[in-house]
Amino acid sequence: MENNFPSQEDIIYAHKNISPFIHCTPVLSSSAINEILGLEVVFKCENFQKIGAFKIRGATNAVLKLSDEEKKQGIATHSSGNHAQAIAYSAKVNNIPAYIVMPKNAPKVKVNAVKGYGAKVIMCEPNLQAREDGLNKVVEETGARFIHPYNDYDIITGQATAAKELIEQTDTLGFIMAPVGGGGLLAGSALSSHYFSSNTKIIAGEPAGADDAFQSFNAGHLIPSNKPNTIADGLLTSVGEKNFPIIQQFVQDIITVSDEEIISAMKLIWERMKIIVEPSSAVPFASLIKIKGELQGRKVGIILSGGNVDLGKLPF
Amino acid sequence: MENNFPSQEDIIYAHKNISPFIHCTPVLSSSAINEILGLEVVFKCENFQKIGAFKIRGATNAVLKLSDEEKKQGIATHSSGNHAQAIAYSAKVNNIPAYIVMPKNAPKVKVNAVKGYGAKVIMCEPNLQAREDGLNKVVEETGARFIHPYNDYDIITGQATAAKELIEQTDTLGFIMAPVGGGGLLAGSALSSHYFSSNTKIIAGEPAGADDAFQSFNAGHLIPSNKPNTIADGLLTSVGEKNFPIIQQFVQDIITVSDEEIISAMKLIWERMKIIVEPSSAVPFASLIKIKGELQGRKVGIILSGGNVDLGKLPF
Repeated sequence: MENNFPSQEDIIYAHKNISPFIHCTPVLSSSAINEILGLEVVFKCENFQKIGAFKIRGATNAVLKLSDEEKKQGIATHSSGNHAQAIAYSAKVNNIPAYIVMPKNAPKVKVNAVKGYGAKVIMCEPNLQAREDGLNKVVEETGARFIHPYNDYDIITGQATAAKELIEQTDTLGFIMAPVGGGGLLAGSALSSHYFSSNTKIIAGEPAGADDAFQSFNAGHLIPSNKPNTIADGLLTSVGEKNFPIIQQFVQDIITVSDEEIISAMKLIWERMKIIVEPSSAVPFASLIKIKGELQGRKVGIILSGGNVDLGKLPF
Repeated sequence: MENNFPSQEDIIYAHKNISPFIHCTPVLSSSAINEILGLEVVFKCENFQKIGAFKIRGATNAVLKLSDEEKKQGIATHSSGNHAQAIAYSAKVNNIPAYIVMPKNAPKVKVNAVKGYGAKVIMCEPNLQAREDGLNKVVEETGARFIHPYNDYDIITGQATAAKELIEQTDTLGFIMAPVGGGGLLAGSALSSHYFSSNTKIIAGEPAGADDAFQSFNAGHLIPSNKPNTIADGLLTSVGEKNFPIIQQFVQDIITVSDEEIISAMKLIWERMKIIVEPSSAVPFASLIKIKGELQGRKVGIILSGGNVDLGKLPF
């Protein structure tokens, strides 16, 4: 490839390396859902993944690629979500220090989970500037390596292994659908589809309340999110600079859905599949429901990105 | 065997017959749960089964064993729970009439599910006498065959296939744990363990608020439930006459758990496994938590019986 995108070999190598540290998650289907949609859908259950989300794939890959010297210094990130847990867990498993800058308003359950993995948590004001300042300070003081949640080729390569696994676990898929926030999972899925199942098209689902990927995709250049607001709290971030060219080249389409459509799709998954997914996970399925008429007769694989949801605060 | 218990061949034959109509449900595990309990646990996910519960196994077996003449007359039962849906669904798939007597206070969602399968629903007062009277009337009028939810060897044989599958899907288990209400699943599991994995011991979990199996098991004779009261609404019934001798002969122990223990075990499954189980499903796991100290070093298989729960009325 005439660019510096992760290669087919990079993804194969990453998958081999991270396999001892992650689950090969099951692929499930529901005849009731197939009947309702009038097409065949399979779900790659990354909600069953370690730490409850696909993020552990990228974090593990990034940690395993560190030199021994870098490992001694540790790793750092800022996040209030699944990436924080993924970094903390990978650090624990590999016995290296981790420093996580978290906003003061992060749910206590998430802060405790990160602390439970032995990471050092640095609290900051709940805004991007404070998070970046906090991160820069800890990196300066400790020499820890900052691992970006999505704008990083090692992360994209790690996330790519979910779609690679899905492709290996099923018959040929007409489409793979994934959510898009920063674009780590989407860019990775697009690369895996290109390398391992070149006839499979990639379609992204995005919340209408955080539709910077949709806007950017159609404009042909990056347009950052402006006051994103959606129940899909894992998809609030804007697409990364490294992710966007991969998405432009290998993604077929981006479909946006309202929060109502996301909640309704989420409920359908809970009720019919009997599995727990977080709102962000339901975004590609909500998108599929919206465009199902155009995909008749094709087999669709959906990556369910995670299942970390506060059971006391369900939207239904 | 010197009794008329279902034989090994009966179960093998039933499994072959019903397989085209049911899911071979996955067996899942969680390293977090293994860590918390300090032993290895695998879960047989009958919450992913058709109609959301193992009951479809027995109902399908019973329907397939009908003669052509009996099939014409149809089948009947009284139930407000998963057995009603199982009978209605099996009847639909086999294109035979079904008559379900349901108490007036049955949840509308369940009544609608049964109607959705094309069964005729007969509403009655919410007490056992009215249910039995309603059933007798419909059987008299239609000639339909009554299929009892548990006190029936064809039902027991069908339910036995869940444990048979579990045994085939995993390494040798030290223990299999199942819930006990009427005893269809428990007696079936005990027979499958005896025939297909004779070193595996069977332990039942039962709600303390409906502990007739525990009482009967210890007394050596049937003691019916007296005003049972528990959140595990699938386990309110008393053990059947045909089920009890099988349980006496092949079950190692029955452990009772409080509703608090059931809810806490249910929440742990939801949070750590990211799957939806109904309260009755969590009873064996709650029992395992209670006696985990005695099972150290052994591998335990738990049958998660179903996942039909009203998402608007969660106990946590």
